[in-house]
Amino acid sequence: MSSARTYPQLQLRIDLAPGVRFGPGKADLLEGIDTLGSIAGAGRLMRMSYKRAWELVGELNRCFDAPLVDASKGGSGGGGASLTPLGKKLLKSYRAMQAAAQTAVGREMNQLRRRVGQPAAG
Amino acid sequence: MSSARTYPQLQLRIDLAPGVRFGPGKADLLEGIDTLGSIAGAGRLMRMSYKRAWELVGELNRCFDAPLVDASKGGSGGGGASLTPLGKKLLKSYRAMQAAAQTAVGREMNQLRRRVGQPAAG
Repeated sequence: MSSARTYPQLQLRIDLAPGVRFGPGKADLLEGIDTLGSIAGAGRLMRMSYKRAWELVGELNRCFDAPLVDASKGGSGGGGASLTPLGKKLLKSYRAMQAAAQTAVGREMNQLRRRVGQPAAG
Repeated sequence: MSSARTYPQLQLRIDLAPGVRFGPGKADLLEGIDTLGSIAGAGRLMRMSYKRAWELVGELNRCFDAPLVDASKGGSGGGGASLTPLGKKLLKSYRAMQAAAQTAVGREMNQLRRRVGQPAAG
């Protein structure tokens, strides 16, 4: 679910509200929920506490005009959860934006790549 | 120096090394150094401690094959600092990538904009 770790690597961050950001971490969390059908499970996969994963989902849900994650099937014991149509749309849109941005900045990133990762002497 | 705060807002983040990121904050810091000729001054403008501003500059300098900021003119008392050619290049390149990415994802962002900022009922 995470991209291969090569540097430099471009990531998109979407500021949704003051202090609330949607970036690769939350995208992976949504993807994990979609795949595993569980907020707790998706959080575990990302080495995130159960509490933290729920907080992030709540924070995201509050930024939109409809929830992104439907956890009504699950209880605090870790029942099921799924992405709503809006959640799926956001995830798909984020991945599409990432790909479009990557293409748009390819040349600049290649130039940057030649200067990164070789520490300055002295 | 900061962009107007409208939401959602796209930001580029470039992962330079594990745990080291270049994004809007560090771009503004470099821009501040370029404008003010002082790391301490640029940090103050961003409500960042003197120590923190220097740490960020040091962290960035170590990621590239040459320094981004030349602070040799200044001492701990807050002497002058300037961007090196590579520092200017990185800042210019980051702003260009931001503009290119923004254009590339314009349509997706507009769709997203319609769903953000109107909290779900209940």
